[in-house]
Amino acid sequence: MLIVKKFGGTSVADKERIFNVAKRCIEDYNKGNDVVVVLSAMGKSTDDLLAMAADINPDMPKREVDMLLATGEQTSVALMSMAMRALGVPAISLNAFQVAMHSTSTYGNAKFKRIDTDRIQHEIDNRRIVIVTGFQGINKYDDITTLGRGGSDTTAVALAAALHADACEIYTDVEGVFTADPRKVPNAKKLPEITYDEMLEMATLGAQVLHNRSVELAKKYGVQLVVRSSLTTAEGTVVKEVTKMESMVVNGIATDKNTARIAVIGLQNTPGVAFKVFNILGKKNINVDVILQSIGRDNTKDISFTVSEEQADEAMEILEENKKALTADHIECDKNVAKVSVIGAGMQTNAGVASKMFEALYNAGINIRMISTSEIRITVLVDEDCADRATKAAHDMFIED
Amino acid sequence: MLIVKKFGGTSVADKERIFNVAKRCIEDYNKGNDVVVVLSAMGKSTDDLLAMAADINPDMPKREVDMLLATGEQTSVALMSMAMRALGVPAISLNAFQVAMHSTSTYGNAKFKRIDTDRIQHEIDNRRIVIVTGFQGINKYDDITTLGRGGSDTTAVALAAALHADACEIYTDVEGVFTADPRKVPNAKKLPEITYDEMLEMATLGAQVLHNRSVELAKKYGVQLVVRSSLTTAEGTVVKEVTKMESMVVNGIATDKNTARIAVIGLQNTPGVAFKVFNILGKKNINVDVILQSIGRDNTKDISFTVSEEQADEAMEILEENKKALTADHIECDKNVAKVSVIGAGMQTNAGVASKMFEALYNAGINIRMISTSEIRITVLVDEDCADRATKAAHDMFIED
Repeated sequence: MLIVKKFGGTSVADKERIFNVAKRCIEDYNKGNDVVVVLSAMGKSTDDLLAMAADINPDMPKREVDMLLATGEQTSVALMSMAMRALGVPAISLNAFQVAMHSTSTYGNAKFKRIDTDRIQHEIDNRRIVIVTGFQGINKYDDITTLGRGGSDTTAVALAAALHADACEIYTDVEGVFTADPRKVPNAKKLPEITYDEMLEMATLGAQVLHNRSVELAKKYGVQLVVRSSLTTAEGTVVKEVTKMESMVVNGIATDKNTARIAVIGLQNTPGVAFKVFNILGKKNINVDVILQSIGRDNTKDISFTVSEEQADEAMEILEENKKALTADHIECDKNVAKVSVIGAGMQTNAGVASKMFEALYNAGINIRMISTSEIRITVLVDEDCADRATKAAHDMFIED
Repeated sequence: MLIVKKFGGTSVADKERIFNVAKRCIEDYNKGNDVVVVLSAMGKSTDDLLAMAADINPDMPKREVDMLLATGEQTSVALMSMAMRALGVPAISLNAFQVAMHSTSTYGNAKFKRIDTDRIQHEIDNRRIVIVTGFQGINKYDDITTLGRGGSDTTAVALAAALHADACEIYTDVEGVFTADPRKVPNAKKLPEITYDEMLEMATLGAQVLHNRSVELAKKYGVQLVVRSSLTTAEGTVVKEVTKMESMVVNGIATDKNTARIAVIGLQNTPGVAFKVFNILGKKNINVDVILQSIGRDNTKDISFTVSEEQADEAMEILEENKKALTADHIECDKNVAKVSVIGAGMQTNAGVASKMFEALYNAGINIRMISTSEIRITVLVDEDCADRATKAAHDMFIED
């Protein structure tokens, strides 16, 4: 069996943890499996490198930042290989060049295009554990790219797909995917299984267990993922196309406090106004989420939407600059909001989930500011200080019952 | 004019020094020159990485050590590129893969085989300052190799040769090559010029200004070097094939205290005994220097030679193990010795240098333990505590007069 195992930065933060990971990989190897390991940079080293870069050049030229950041994973994989060899197992580290992991050219946010398997396969055939740098690729200029934060998950899935691996295990500091954040909802349950689509909604909405792009890629290539803890031997959560749990309508409650609500008030009620607003934001790469359009006073339109808190100020700035062209009366921003979402593939065949959600929040005395739904998700915007109560209310309604 | 400039680790140890180097390179660039910069790892970072490796795996698997160490220069070049861009100059960093700097396969001690110039030339043609990682190469397996300590000098010379550069400047923390160590001989003079051969003798004998292999390579490809300070704008020393200074017989006095004398006493006076001694040492990669063979008591032979202090214990061990096979009576080791050498291309056409050297040491009351000569060098072994006095005596005799 060929197993791809991915470990994040905290799992390789020091010597003790490196050896802990090495031993876990060697266990699988000694059972006769072929093992490919994907690693992130150690602990906070990526942050440290970014701080160095910002100190030298606040503009942070992206190509050079990627060149710099790539040293982080290269350090991890070299040390891991040394650790495994210290334990008597043949291991070899490979960076994105050596593999070769071909990506698009976009520095800081590259996507994989093609992964060569010759070198890895050759090392596997020689019964070596192969340790690959996560998070990085090379583009058509032979320059180093990075995939953006959490990109090592994507590296693992892409390698699993390219190598036709039998399993792809994502090791993290939690025991799997939970029905809600266990720190906030003490009776949150670990899910044995979850579908790709559910996981995608969870990831997008701030569950922070798996990098979003990695789930999309897993879905595209049918790579079955297991999310599990690097600290315990608990079973973890399997992420796959179809789960057996059709009976469970809602599989998770995701909470995202990193959100701000922007309202553009008093727009002329003419066609194309909404287009203008989102076109301006799109040009600045501001990602807009939950959108609501309503009729304001004097036959004007109000358009509200959410953005991440980091992008809120930039969004406000660009909208204020264009206030006249947009015919807006004024623009408001409220960072004191949070998104709470219930997610479940079973929603597609179960009516009444939305009304149950609203009932739960009503009973908890929580005001709903905006609503957005997909086939497998219902999201409500609430005041940030109500978010944890809303999560708990939804959890009690859907998971506990 | 195409200039290759190499800066060592201390020259890029922190933000301030990085910008200092950046500005020096930009000065040349702004005069219309094409500039290629070779950098070592920042400050003590190579030592830090080696310590990490030794902590994880005391055996230090060489391939993985090179993979690890290579991150040091990659960090330097990325930060330098950011610094130059912060100063408004287009710059690009390249590692050994990107260049590509093809080397032999020997990890930790690789030699360059071939350097591709397409990528660098392309960047130069676009009027970019190109910043290349020193010290590292890639071998035929696409694995990262390193050239051994001080290898960045070699990278600079190899690049200058491959690119047919008009100048190759090695920046260091001294102002050039001196007639003796200025810390020991206060009236040591900076040499405006020195030949490759003289420089080679100086480097081998512990002058520590230029990496030996870089001088050999410069001689082979006729790359004219300039050794100069990264801290001042003083002129530096030119290293070339033939200098104009035929009149000056001795160009430098080199002192090497990192030496130990080993004596193998009472060997049978039969053919092949010397071969056996040095064959045993050669197999263990122990480098032997000044050799002396003399007749001992009872028609036996004594063989003495010097090794570096680091290798002395290993040499003693292997000789003791083979004492019987060597027919040796006993083996002695004395670490309390030093080599003092006078070096000058002019010696070849000037008789009497040796006798003047012995005269100088005699006048200073210094006992000579062993003597070794080449065409352009006379080396004497003296007690270590006499070394500085011997250096000064030779300097007074040859340089001051």
